[in-house]
Amino acid sequence: MTSNFIYFDNSATTKPYKEVVDSFVKVSTDYFGNPSSLHRIGGEAEKLLSKGRKQIAEQLAVKPSEIIFTSGGTESNNLAVKGAALMHRNRGNHIITSAVEHASIKEPYKQLQELGFEVTILPVDDEGRVSVRELANAISDQTILVSVMHVNNEVGTIQPIEQIGALLTSYPKVLFHVDHIQGVGKVPLNLQKSHVDLCSFSGHKFHGLKGTGLLYVREGVTLSPLLTGGSQERKYRSGTENVAGAVALAKALRLTLENMDEQVPRILKLKETIIRGIQDIEEIVVHTPAVNSAPHIINFSVKGFKAEVFVHALEEKDIYVSTTSACSSKKKAGSSTLTAMGVPEEIAGSAIRISLSHENTIEEANFVVDAIKETVNKLREVMK
Amino acid sequence: MTSNFIYFDNSATTKPYKEVVDSFVKVSTDYFGNPSSLHRIGGEAEKLLSKGRKQIAEQLAVKPSEIIFTSGGTESNNLAVKGAALMHRNRGNHIITSAVEHASIKEPYKQLQELGFEVTILPVDDEGRVSVRELANAISDQTILVSVMHVNNEVGTIQPIEQIGALLTSYPKVLFHVDHIQGVGKVPLNLQKSHVDLCSFSGHKFHGLKGTGLLYVREGVTLSPLLTGGSQERKYRSGTENVAGAVALAKALRLTLENMDEQVPRILKLKETIIRGIQDIEEIVVHTPAVNSAPHIINFSVKGFKAEVFVHALEEKDIYVSTTSACSSKKKAGSSTLTAMGVPEEIAGSAIRISLSHENTIEEANFVVDAIKETVNKLREVMK
Ligand SMILES: Cc1ncc(COP(=O)(O)O)c(C=O)c1O
Ligand SMILES: Cc1ncc(COP(=O)(O)O)c(C=O)c1O
Repeated sequence: MTSNFIYFDNSATTKPYKEVVDSFVKVSTDYFGNPSSLHRIGGEAEKLLSKGRKQIAEQLAVKPSEIIFTSGGTESNNLAVKGAALMHRNRGNHIITSAVEHASIKEPYKQLQELGFEVTILPVDDEGRVSVRELANAISDQTILVSVMHVNNEVGTIQPIEQIGALLTSYPKVLFHVDHIQGVGKVPLNLQKSHVDLCSFSGHKFHGLKGTGLLYVREGVTLSPLLTGGSQERKYRSGTENVAGAVALAKALRLTLENMDEQVPRILKLKETIIRGIQDIEEIVVHTPAVNSAPHIINFSVKGFKAEVFVHALEEKDIYVSTTSACSSKKKAGSSTLTAMGVPEEIAGSAIRISLSHENTIEEANFVVDAIKETVNKLREVMK
Repeated sequence: MTSNFIYFDNSATTKPYKEVVDSFVKVSTDYFGNPSSLHRIGGEAEKLLSKGRKQIAEQLAVKPSEIIFTSGGTESNNLAVKGAALMHRNRGNHIITSAVEHASIKEPYKQLQELGFEVTILPVDDEGRVSVRELANAISDQTILVSVMHVNNEVGTIQPIEQIGALLTSYPKVLFHVDHIQGVGKVPLNLQKSHVDLCSFSGHKFHGLKGTGLLYVREGVTLSPLLTGGSQERKYRSGTENVAGAVALAKALRLTLENMDEQVPRILKLKETIIRGIQDIEEIVVHTPAVNSAPHIINFSVKGFKAEVFVHALEEKDIYVSTTSACSSKKKAGSSTLTAMGVPEEIAGSAIRISLSHENTIEEANFVVDAIKETVNKLREVMK
């Protein structure tokens, strides 16, 4: 493990807060009971689980009973999409999503399509944004589900969640799911005001632990569970509860949301510093929209250079960035978001993502600007 | 949190080994990268994940590629049963299980039945054991899956896994799933020798962490995934990997299996001490079979006393036991295993489970015997 490096891949995963790890250890060790056990050891675990749920509900201004703990973002997304579609199939068989969703939305939609659902995939504009009007046009009397992400994980584009929510109030049969996984702590989302029915969170994206997540399920909304058994989590997610994980998730969310007002302007300043520093380099095209984009993601191409080469060149300076989203980086699938935005394949193949957290500093931002300039110059030489 | 108590509810959950918690902390803190990231921080995490997988494979004498990490026993069981049935539906639509399975098998079978599968639920004898002959009779040319647990979580009965596996070698179309969750570290199971195709493990049942588990998937066996997305775990289980959880699971399994030869005789002695100590009490009927049962589970009824009353009476002496399985204890559903064994409802309603671990001592075993005697005497007085 190296200690002296610059970590700019916070959209792939973040370093957990020390307090989060400490909570996990404390609960795992001292409150190891099964919350379903009738005796005190079980009761103490159950109390901690309830407390974690209550704290999270307060942070999100929702009810504790609306929080379903899961094992992470992928499970939350799968449960939301498949759970809603399979539960409400009798109401209609049309479901809608966007062209820029994470694989953990795209793949469940594909599976549902194979099961006979009709799927509409909304296109996006050159900033990666869906059109509320196009969404409105896509809705039919068969539509039962719309899933649109809040913040895109590759370029940082913010979707018009509040407007979509407002539109969908006219379609009471349509459930609205939001993948908020990249937005947590970075871009505010008011679940009530945006009329969100289902919302996914993943702990490790906001300095919580891998293997923890949650799905917000608005009161009255019903789902077909993916994992059945002991009926935990209001029957929506069976399995002995990861109590320590839930408590750690509550802590990560609190630390993140409490410090948001202070951290977001700082992170935004780093983003602006980096973009300002690199945008005039001849080979660079910035894909992240100038407005209505998240404070922590910068996506740009260095034309003429393969993304992998550039990532490894920066790695030699102990700067860790990524090509596209982490889980597609090994598949060399290219960036589906950039393609949907109309970016030519060749340029998309040169795309680099820098993703920031509160742990990054202005010195690191300046350092990466210099490093990018240097690397472009060096690679330019090599190419000649 | 109390420190001076006797924990006899190890089938509900166990206290994690200190080394397991330490590993989790170390990996979460120092190797927090996303294994899918191309850079070194990701590579280091990926290496630890692979190492954990390899260690587990060695312990189980299988291949690393046959290990799929999950979030626990319930997920492993759901993935095995639904994944196998949905994947191989074209081969046949008959699936078989037993009457004494955990809810995380029973419920998936119910869901599959609703989807049109024909389900055979094998009865058990008065010791809770299925008959290999009855299984053989139940198999038709439509049968594609048999799921039978190794060790029953309520009474400790060991099922004839090796014989079932041998039988099923004559039916190459039939996949064999074993819920080994209560057997790990207590009753040996040779996956190869028993011709097991799919096998579930849950970390928190063998002093690992809640939220960790695995499914063994024999090479060549294919499954329809429940969680789709970034294609992690050979596409069978998408989602950013819980690297620290996987490493912690590997450690828990190693510590458990390495010490098995030494611990099992010790645990067995405690079991025998307790059974010998209580079996002559007039009101007591022992449900756990005298032979072919796990070393750590003792199930008995105290006739005439409601199980809850007895559990709480022991709790006053700081002894923690359970009524039935943890996850059904709050539903007051009664014990489905005992009912399947033909135990009359009234007696089943008085059933207590003591479940042991290597942490329990002979002093504790003697103490609980005295406590049970005392409690029976006291309750007898009250009843008069
Ligand atoms: C937008 C988005 N949705 C879903 C996920 C999946 O979350 P997880 O990795 O916790 O399964 C991710 C990250 O991988 C993401 O960025
Ligand atoms: C036999 C058996 N199978 C499955 C499970 C479910 O495992 P988990 O609690 O890890 O989801 C349990 C315990 O709850 C069990 O005892």
